[in-house]
Amino acid sequence: MSGKQRITPRATDFSAWYNDVIARAELAEHAPVRGCMVIRPRGYRIWELMQRALDDMFRETGHENAYFPLLIPQSLLEKEAEHVAGFAPEIAVVTHAGGKELEEPLVLRPTSETIVYSMFSRWIQSYRDLPLLINQWANVIRWEMRPRLFLRTTEFLWQEGHTAHATDGEAEEEALSIVGLYRRFMEDWMALPVITGVKTESERFAGAARTFALEALMQDNKALQTGTSHNLGQNFAKAFDVQFQNADGEMEYTWNTSWGVSTRLVGALIMAHGDDQGLVLPPKLAPTQVVIVPIWKTDGDRVAVMQVSERVAQVLRETGLRVEVDDRDDVKPGAKYYIWECRGVPVRLEIGPRDVSQGQAILVRRTGGKTPVKMDGIAEFVSEMLELLQRSMLEDARTRREQSTRRNVTMEELVALMAGDGGFAFGGFCGKAECERGIKDQTQATIRVLPDPEFRTDPAPDRCVCGDAAVTEAVWAKAY
Amino acid sequence: MSGKQRITPRATDFSAWYNDVIARAELAEHAPVRGCMVIRPRGYRIWELMQRALDDMFRETGHENAYFPLLIPQSLLEKEAEHVAGFAPEIAVVTHAGGKELEEPLVLRPTSETIVYSMFSRWIQSYRDLPLLINQWANVIRWEMRPRLFLRTTEFLWQEGHTAHATDGEAEEEALSIVGLYRRFMEDWMALPVITGVKTESERFAGAARTFALEALMQDNKALQTGTSHNLGQNFAKAFDVQFQNADGEMEYTWNTSWGVSTRLVGALIMAHGDDQGLVLPPKLAPTQVVIVPIWKTDGDRVAVMQVSERVAQVLRETGLRVEVDDRDDVKPGAKYYIWECRGVPVRLEIGPRDVSQGQAILVRRTGGKTPVKMDGIAEFVSEMLELLQRSMLEDARTRREQSTRRNVTMEELVALMAGDGGFAFGGFCGKAECERGIKDQTQATIRVLPDPEFRTDPAPDRCVCGDAAVTEAVWAKAY
Repeated sequence: MSGKQRITPRATDFSAWYNDVIARAELAEHAPVRGCMVIRPRGYRIWELMQRALDDMFRETGHENAYFPLLIPQSLLEKEAEHVAGFAPEIAVVTHAGGKELEEPLVLRPTSETIVYSMFSRWIQSYRDLPLLINQWANVIRWEMRPRLFLRTTEFLWQEGHTAHATDGEAEEEALSIVGLYRRFMEDWMALPVITGVKTESERFAGAARTFALEALMQDNKALQTGTSHNLGQNFAKAFDVQFQNADGEMEYTWNTSWGVSTRLVGALIMAHGDDQGLVLPPKLAPTQVVIVPIWKTDGDRVAVMQVSERVAQVLRETGLRVEVDDRDDVKPGAKYYIWECRGVPVRLEIGPRDVSQGQAILVRRTGGKTPVKMDGIAEFVSEMLELLQRSMLEDARTRREQSTRRNVTMEELVALMAGDGGFAFGGFCGKAECERGIKDQTQATIRVLPDPEFRTDPAPDRCVCGDAAVTEAVWAKAY
Repeated sequence: MSGKQRITPRATDFSAWYNDVIARAELAEHAPVRGCMVIRPRGYRIWELMQRALDDMFRETGHENAYFPLLIPQSLLEKEAEHVAGFAPEIAVVTHAGGKELEEPLVLRPTSETIVYSMFSRWIQSYRDLPLLINQWANVIRWEMRPRLFLRTTEFLWQEGHTAHATDGEAEEEALSIVGLYRRFMEDWMALPVITGVKTESERFAGAARTFALEALMQDNKALQTGTSHNLGQNFAKAFDVQFQNADGEMEYTWNTSWGVSTRLVGALIMAHGDDQGLVLPPKLAPTQVVIVPIWKTDGDRVAVMQVSERVAQVLRETGLRVEVDDRDDVKPGAKYYIWECRGVPVRLEIGPRDVSQGQAILVRRTGGKTPVKMDGIAEFVSEMLELLQRSMLEDARTRREQSTRRNVTMEELVALMAGDGGFAFGGFCGKAECERGIKDQTQATIRVLPDPEFRTDPAPDRCVCGDAAVTEAVWAKAY
């Protein structure tokens, strides 16, 4: 779409709205290769802010970054049978290099368990080498038939944690503590409420013993899996011979975890918070937190207004805020407002000649509302405003999710819900794969997670939606 | 090599020494795929510190990060004839994906000019869109026949800048200002003196109008190209139709630059500063700047010594230093010294019971020398010591380079030098490609750069080493 066209309203076509917002906010574009994307500076900066926050959290919890190669020998990928079966349909293969056909085809990593554990088997000898807590920031390739910018792309950027432990208990603890870390990041940084829980067998990671996941609700009432954390048991340790000598001198296989979040989170941010004017960014992840728009008619006004605008920008930057002054003289203030709203900047400060003489600026919130602010103490005021916005965005998103959540659904309600408004449907679950599959075939909804205790319905449902006795509770939704 | 073996001395076999240091300091390892490497946490952290410093410098000079895809259609790579000819022997090709043979093979990026300029042609319309200053941190693939860890690997990590300008003059200014930026980084952060200049045609980047380069001397007296910056002229703009409307409403092709440094810099750091005990890291790029080794015999001593060690670590960390306390009780102090020296940690603090009672620690510099330090003001003392070490490492490296530099060499001297000690040889140059090729065939030395004015010999040599009239000066060396 061209720069001049309006954004399709969400209610008209959510998918068109999503693409329009990405185009207008200049976040990303399709690349010449189907399924691949170019992440433009305004989109990449959001990812960098996410990376920085997550990386600090990984480091604080004892993880170290490393880098494993992109190219994996096909034979290595095939060592864990379930794993290769899960990824085979998505892999891309290098058959020629350096002007020759290769003796063995090389796979572009769809994920790095196989290469990581083949190295772990060299690095780990003794219980003293454990736990080994590694993270990697990298690109991965999974051939994508139905690409969508950020949500499903053939190449995407992510982090993948890989850890080795002496006991199953420690691995389970690590996998769960990462779910907690991800949840804090999503709530505190992305202003995104999530439901956590464990996946059923049908949605489990290929090669894992248990997959834990975080699920968020988008504004079209579809769920998005925002992160996963896997307890791999000893599956990969056995496939790649990762053994250690315990304190008694005996050899044991390690217990492993892996976990990841990706550039998909940028898509989640757009779909959870955006509105019909465009992007709405939580202050902590906004590349520009404050935009200052100076307003003038005469050259004399221009000088005074620009001077004050630059001084305010300076003061705000000194308190650590990310600030831009939009001083273009070929764009009218109204057009500037429109552009910066579309880009999701949380706070705009308008400064005109009258504001200068009154020692104030007009503060406009991206989420609505306008208020004059005294120049005196403006940095503190704006900082507090941004913190408030951050918190209220989380609350608003939580309210939206609760409004789209139904509990104790019957089969009839589940079917009607998924044919209509969508959202999260909590219901009893008999635990049978046939029941899960039948409902999926009928409604297109899947079990997103078997929710963790704090998300469960009280009292617990005693019947599955299918009518059989419930063994647990499930959260159903249509999902991206 | 196993953890117990000694490091091969540099004088015995420099190449074996290099591999030993990497193995013993746990920086990297060969991966299962020939030519690929795994960068281990201690090596990757050095790269991250480099990235952070460079990224800040790019941002301060107005560049923005973006991400372009790994996969490039073969037809796109072929649009700039000289470029594809230069890279064809090194490319890796994906022919199968998603379970099918692809209609068009996809190339793994060896560098991203082709994909970047195909996107620039969409993004740039008017002179108001210029300059466009983009950087990308990414992995690239160039099939490598003679791999060496960090120096030449099939996959490596790098940054690649890509910019578009309205005039040739602005592009030239950008290309040169990046050379200056790289030089400041190499001198101030890596403690690595470099010679800057322009490449002859034979060493020019495939598709560039001019290639500028930075060259450093390693301890085996071989040169290492540490960075390049290319003025691409309008070659890529014409191949990819990157045009803009100038202020007069006319269409013009943009002028472009590209520039990069890679994980090769970690190799440069090792070979420029390391010694027979292992790695020697400049403080600014040392993952651990200070290691504290507590020394005790009795349990009572242990408590007191550990308490003081932790307190010192705390105080040092508060001033922003990266500190580790090696409190392992199954490793003797002497063995700890040996390990941390091998890892290149600039400063070691030994704290024993007598030190505790005397209110001091023993400071040992990685580059030699030992001195007691009062606990009072220890943070300031250590910080100043690290700054001093940073500067003196640069001076020492400069001295080594000057000792291995000859000026006004004759053909006879050049041949003898390259058959013997090696190093940088400055001499007049007639500018003829045949002369350059002839000398390369005879000596294996290449012209590293035609040096920038500040590096040139005064008075300028008037004869080429071949005897013809000199048109410029050249720096010859055998190179990695």
